[in-house]
Amino acid sequence: MTTPRTKRHHVLVVGAGFGGLAVARSLRRSEVDVTLVDQHNFHTFQPLLYQVATSGLGAEDVAHQVRGIVRGHGNARFRLGRVTDFDLDGRRARLDDGSELHYDTLVLAAGAVYGDYGVAGVREHAFVLKSLQEAVELRSHILRQFEAAALDAHAADEGRLTFVIAGAGPTGVEMAGALVELFAVVRKDYPELAAQQPRVVLVEPTAGVLGPYTSATRAYAERTLRRRGVDVRLGTSIVRVARDHVELDDGERLATHTLVWAAGVRAHPLAERLGVTLGPGARVPVTDRLHLEERPEVFVIGDAAGVPGHATRAYPQVAQVAIQMGKHVGRVIRARSSGTASAPFRYRDRGQMAIIGRNAGVAELPKRFGGGRFGGFPGWLAWLFIHLIYLPGHQNRVSALATWVYNYFTYDRHARLVLDGRTRGSAAVGASAADPSPAPGHRASDAARRAA
Amino acid sequence: MTTPRTKRHHVLVVGAGFGGLAVARSLRRSEVDVTLVDQHNFHTFQPLLYQVATSGLGAEDVAHQVRGIVRGHGNARFRLGRVTDFDLDGRRARLDDGSELHYDTLVLAAGAVYGDYGVAGVREHAFVLKSLQEAVELRSHILRQFEAAALDAHAADEGRLTFVIAGAGPTGVEMAGALVELFAVVRKDYPELAAQQPRVVLVEPTAGVLGPYTSATRAYAERTLRRRGVDVRLGTSIVRVARDHVELDDGERLATHTLVWAAGVRAHPLAERLGVTLGPGARVPVTDRLHLEERPEVFVIGDAAGVPGHATRAYPQVAQVAIQMGKHVGRVIRARSSGTASAPFRYRDRGQMAIIGRNAGVAELPKRFGGGRFGGFPGWLAWLFIHLIYLPGHQNRVSALATWVYNYFTYDRHARLVLDGRTRGSAAVGASAADPSPAPGHRASDAARRAA
Repeated sequence: MTTPRTKRHHVLVVGAGFGGLAVARSLRRSEVDVTLVDQHNFHTFQPLLYQVATSGLGAEDVAHQVRGIVRGHGNARFRLGRVTDFDLDGRRARLDDGSELHYDTLVLAAGAVYGDYGVAGVREHAFVLKSLQEAVELRSHILRQFEAAALDAHAADEGRLTFVIAGAGPTGVEMAGALVELFAVVRKDYPELAAQQPRVVLVEPTAGVLGPYTSATRAYAERTLRRRGVDVRLGTSIVRVARDHVELDDGERLATHTLVWAAGVRAHPLAERLGVTLGPGARVPVTDRLHLEERPEVFVIGDAAGVPGHATRAYPQVAQVAIQMGKHVGRVIRARSSGTASAPFRYRDRGQMAIIGRNAGVAELPKRFGGGRFGGFPGWLAWLFIHLIYLPGHQNRVSALATWVYNYFTYDRHARLVLDGRTRGSAAVGASAADPSPAPGHRASDAARRAA
Repeated sequence: MTTPRTKRHHVLVVGAGFGGLAVARSLRRSEVDVTLVDQHNFHTFQPLLYQVATSGLGAEDVAHQVRGIVRGHGNARFRLGRVTDFDLDGRRARLDDGSELHYDTLVLAAGAVYGDYGVAGVREHAFVLKSLQEAVELRSHILRQFEAAALDAHAADEGRLTFVIAGAGPTGVEMAGALVELFAVVRKDYPELAAQQPRVVLVEPTAGVLGPYTSATRAYAERTLRRRGVDVRLGTSIVRVARDHVELDDGERLATHTLVWAAGVRAHPLAERLGVTLGPGARVPVTDRLHLEERPEVFVIGDAAGVPGHATRAYPQVAQVAIQMGKHVGRVIRARSSGTASAPFRYRDRGQMAIIGRNAGVAELPKRFGGGRFGGFPGWLAWLFIHLIYLPGHQNRVSALATWVYNYFTYDRHARLVLDGRTRGSAAVGASAADPSPAPGHRASDAARRAA
């Protein structure tokens, strides 16, 4: 029997990303109850997913289970589940298991998904980097390409060793830089591939990489990528995607089995369930207190929120925005419960940074901090330092730091594990060697358990 | 184009476990070519899988990719694939992708699987701990039970919080001890479960735990388990397994959603493909040089091999046996290629150790080392030390040590991640919130890629 909780104001936070966690933390000493709901039992540190996909860090290094994070809050609970819809008038969220959660205040902090911009084949064939599972699947897929190529001298011609990245924003640039570093390991560990050269093609529709940065930074990033062997195609779009190739708008057909779609995000589909007209990128228009105009009890923060008072402007879809918005919503809710006034939200730009690879980062400070920018080794070191600080969990920090030090000095990538559940264990109960699908009984029982 | 290799004697090693890796290492300076084939691209450190299942260590801490291990050997190659059969007369191994690998010498080092002893429902409902994937699935399942119980005050009555382990050998004992330690975290992080007590039932058909140990050690282990809250049922067998309960031979019906089957192993099904009459536990009878009587070019080592010259005796199915056998096969192959004589295999017992939990291990030395035994804190420390030394990969050692230190002082279990591929990312391309199966296109494309 669970202890009945006294009837306090109930804040339901959908999503345990940077924004959702910031709301819960901001409310941890308030006279409200907080429920944090997420379909995963862990927070995913999205800025490092590209490192998981390229075997630079282990998957478990960038995840931290939510209950451990909210444990100290006292007034926060965690609920594992996927919210699929809202009853806004009844103040309820619906979950995929059929249950409903009542709220007094709702905070939608569900983040963003990748949009396919209407390009045929993206949904079926592209890899994206938003969830841990997706990063592990991309890692496994990339490693399988190397294994397949090791058995076939013509693999490179068939595009097995061509990795195409769509979009040269921070994610695309970081992914491209990390992939060419992974190739150094391939040269060492795949003697079969000595005569085949893997390559990365970075396709960007605009005239340069790292759109939001200054021109000096962008030029440095592009130069560095090219020098490291990335085939940067500017002013070029992908118009069609198939299993074994992509087609570019200049008519070229690139043989590849791996397209990483980093070409732009849109708000999580839950934004469509709020009953308001969405802005560009499916962002939800919010007031300067970050709630819906007509429903002050419904807040939207992070990647899914628009800029207050601007129909078309958008904040960068980064952790800093989500964190600041989450803190602000916490302040607004606290002010309401104490009957005091809250201030309007103001985003304080803390600068931006991205990493191209070994010894090569870019960092730009905002004008109020002098507007400085630094690249190369200092930028790289700043990036490492900041990400270590923000990575949740002491153990994750120790593990990530040890891994980075190891990778730096050995040029190795240890976390090269094909582990996506598609190769089943050799050792299921009584499985026969001749049985092509190992342990089907287990899968069935998993499904039965899950349904139960 | 791959460089053609000169025609040298080709040793095919099936399985990259302790035995298979020992063969490759032993042959690394010989005039033979070695191919190591495994269905995973990593070596799994099986003795620590129970820690993965109980969130004590991360999954990636106990895996090490094989190419990194054989990199320095020069004459060894890795092949990702699953061997399904042999053509012994034609000296070929068949893989599940339809290809064949020719060998001059074959070493079967495929390990063991769990046998169900004819108990109904084991194949469909039990969890086993032989592969990394299975450990991750068991971990995810255990954590899901806590999440489910947090939502339902009657969960304990329905067996959601009852974890049954069949078999009180080292694996069963270690799993039981680790599970009760995990409950300490549950008490902290699941306030909803304050009034429900999770429990572990360890079911063993014989009269005591840890069969192969001395009676003093066994008594200590049993006492310690009971004191820590494990419900030890000796002289009891499981006769039937269903989704939500197990039936014992004394007529009791235990409500549970989690049965861990640690009740005894049998040789990997590939043993049946060697055309010989198998011994107890499906073990392959071998000569004192560890090959088939009729086929000196086919060696069998590790969990799948019998004791030379004994139809019914069996070595313990532990890493030490596999490693010593692997080294020995390497010596026999080297002796053959240099035309010298090889010695018969002799297993040198180095003692045995198991861990019951925090500050409680058991270790026994063989008679030639004085036959000492130690338990408690010294046994626990010895266990940690030995496992750290044998764990492959510097990074794994650093990470495991850091995790153990953290767990020891905080009583926390950080790696509590539900990550078995059954919750898909929120962020697939264009997925709709109302769509109950997120990103079906992605799954389809994965399957298509794999088939390609």
